[in-house]
Amino acid sequence: MKIAVDAMGGDNAPQAVIEGCIAALGDMSADIVLVGKEDVIREELAKYAGMYEEDRIEIVHADEVIENEDSPVKAVRTKRHSSLVMAVDMVKEGKASAMMSAGNTGALMAAALLRLGRIKGIERPAIVSAFPKLGKRGEFVLLADTGANAECTAHNLLSFAYMGSIYRHHAFGTENPAIGLVNIGSEETKGTAMLKEAHQLLKTSDLNFIGNVEGREIPRTDADVLVCDGFTGNIVLKLTEGVAWNVFKMIKEKITEDLTAKLGALILKKKLYSLKEEFDYSSYGGAPILGVKGMVFKMHGSSSAVAVQNAVVKAAAVYERDVIGEIESSMEKFRNDGAENDGAE
Amino acid sequence: MKIAVDAMGGDNAPQAVIEGCIAALGDMSADIVLVGKEDVIREELAKYAGMYEEDRIEIVHADEVIENEDSPVKAVRTKRHSSLVMAVDMVKEGKASAMMSAGNTGALMAAALLRLGRIKGIERPAIVSAFPKLGKRGEFVLLADTGANAECTAHNLLSFAYMGSIYRHHAFGTENPAIGLVNIGSEETKGTAMLKEAHQLLKTSDLNFIGNVEGREIPRTDADVLVCDGFTGNIVLKLTEGVAWNVFKMIKEKITEDLTAKLGALILKKKLYSLKEEFDYSSYGGAPILGVKGMVFKMHGSSSAVAVQNAVVKAAAVYERDVIGEIESSMEKFRNDGAENDGAE
Repeated sequence: MKIAVDAMGGDNAPQAVIEGCIAALGDMSADIVLVGKEDVIREELAKYAGMYEEDRIEIVHADEVIENEDSPVKAVRTKRHSSLVMAVDMVKEGKASAMMSAGNTGALMAAALLRLGRIKGIERPAIVSAFPKLGKRGEFVLLADTGANAECTAHNLLSFAYMGSIYRHHAFGTENPAIGLVNIGSEETKGTAMLKEAHQLLKTSDLNFIGNVEGREIPRTDADVLVCDGFTGNIVLKLTEGVAWNVFKMIKEKITEDLTAKLGALILKKKLYSLKEEFDYSSYGGAPILGVKGMVFKMHGSSSAVAVQNAVVKAAAVYERDVIGEIESSMEKFRNDGAENDGAE
Repeated sequence: MKIAVDAMGGDNAPQAVIEGCIAALGDMSADIVLVGKEDVIREELAKYAGMYEEDRIEIVHADEVIENEDSPVKAVRTKRHSSLVMAVDMVKEGKASAMMSAGNTGALMAAALLRLGRIKGIERPAIVSAFPKLGKRGEFVLLADTGANAECTAHNLLSFAYMGSIYRHHAFGTENPAIGLVNIGSEETKGTAMLKEAHQLLKTSDLNFIGNVEGREIPRTDADVLVCDGFTGNIVLKLTEGVAWNVFKMIKEKITEDLTAKLGALILKKKLYSLKEEFDYSSYGGAPILGVKGMVFKMHGSSSAVAVQNAVVKAAAVYERDVIGEIESSMEKFRNDGAENDGAE
């Protein structure tokens, strides 16, 4: 098995990406294909000469790079020789089992859609992000969608729930995952017309739907998968990160502002550090774009080497669970049950 | 000046509401009208006999109570003698300068709209909530709307920005308030079609528009006022509260889990407590429903006596700044500039 990695994508590319890939080799049997500017990659790899199994990392040269500022669809159409598009094409051509990138999210989504195509029955793919539950050590929730589709229909949300449930079950072993709907009240009459419809679709589905989940409940929700449109999901994901990060920063500043406090800080430092680790999004791997015919993972734009390492190792494990095959057969059942969404192909 | 307070609304009513009102008397010259079941109010007031200026609190008996479970519009139409509706009517009839309630938000919004009516030029009123910026002591941002309108047009958002700017300036003294648009990317091409249109409307307005603000930036935004639809605003407000609260809870649990840590905890206890105060939403007062012809404030459902006290005192101060008059004249200017929104009256 080979994992294709966009070596040029992300704020810390190629350094952190390549360092993370090398570290990942020790944690998995899969090999890695680094896609990007060959000279840059070789120069970076040279730093680790003799420190890794060199025959397990292949380089595929890509002339171009898609920047964060590039318009997604246009970039995918015009930059055919970009590291991002070429890595996706390796999955399409069966040369890699999965691909991952910390680059332009919109372009990754566009490349996944245009180059791999949708799974039959899925109208819109979704980005599925994991984030830790606060105060529930080791527990996490999957959020779908977190940015692929700013606007959604109720049927989109239902398909996100199916895909999220399958991914949660097959990639993380959760039996009969609990599905929640992000909303502004617990009653089924709350929210927009779309959300009221989505509530009814989820309620009458064979999913383990536990109802609406309000903003205040999200950090400790009982749900294993939360569904929402990509606008809401993106706000939820980034706001949670922003609030948690700022609270930690405030505490750090507070406990170092004078000597008395510093004494306490020394004692508590380890405690706080272990707490901070609980918030560490990087340990949950990349976010798959589910609904396309191939495993594509979005890594956080500012991924560190450790985050890349976790994402690559997790991607290899997920591939082995055949999540795509499971989604395909589930969608077939879904369609046969007459729940096909409008415009689905 | 008199402030009408719904004595029966909220999780801690009437106890916390009445305790807060009595405490507020010492901080303002305005008097208070408690609206609700007279016997219940008298019994509660009796606890404070001799401890407050009794002639500054009037009781207006209201037979009925609107419950949280009640359907908003129906409740307002059928429960004419409820404490919430009667308190709004006191504003309508000029018997009170402002009213406040910690009860059913939807019903409060419906009562404000149906009993007071909209300000000319405002299509939809907005709930405007204040919340503290993290790590910027004493600074806060106003968020509009936080729940009155789950679905909005771009013109709605523009009017929220105008009203938020006026409220920020007149109630809090901020000159030329900076306006931000909650969105999933900083570029003006990001977000839904509605948000792209709102971005352009804000950009070409005479407001001090500083652009899109992403989820991660919200906790420390440079904006004085953030605008969004009521669904997004409600999620942002409650999620921020939920994450901050849970992080504090985690730290508290962590530092008390063993003896060594307890030693540190003793030293840091005061520090953390003062930090927690910075998050204290209750010190910012109630959230006005702007855009109706009267001052109506929504208090948090679980308001403590201190929160009620702050809200009542703040409401009296805001009334004196004639925010409604300012909105009316601004809307007149807005309409004369040809920016009238469709269907606005």
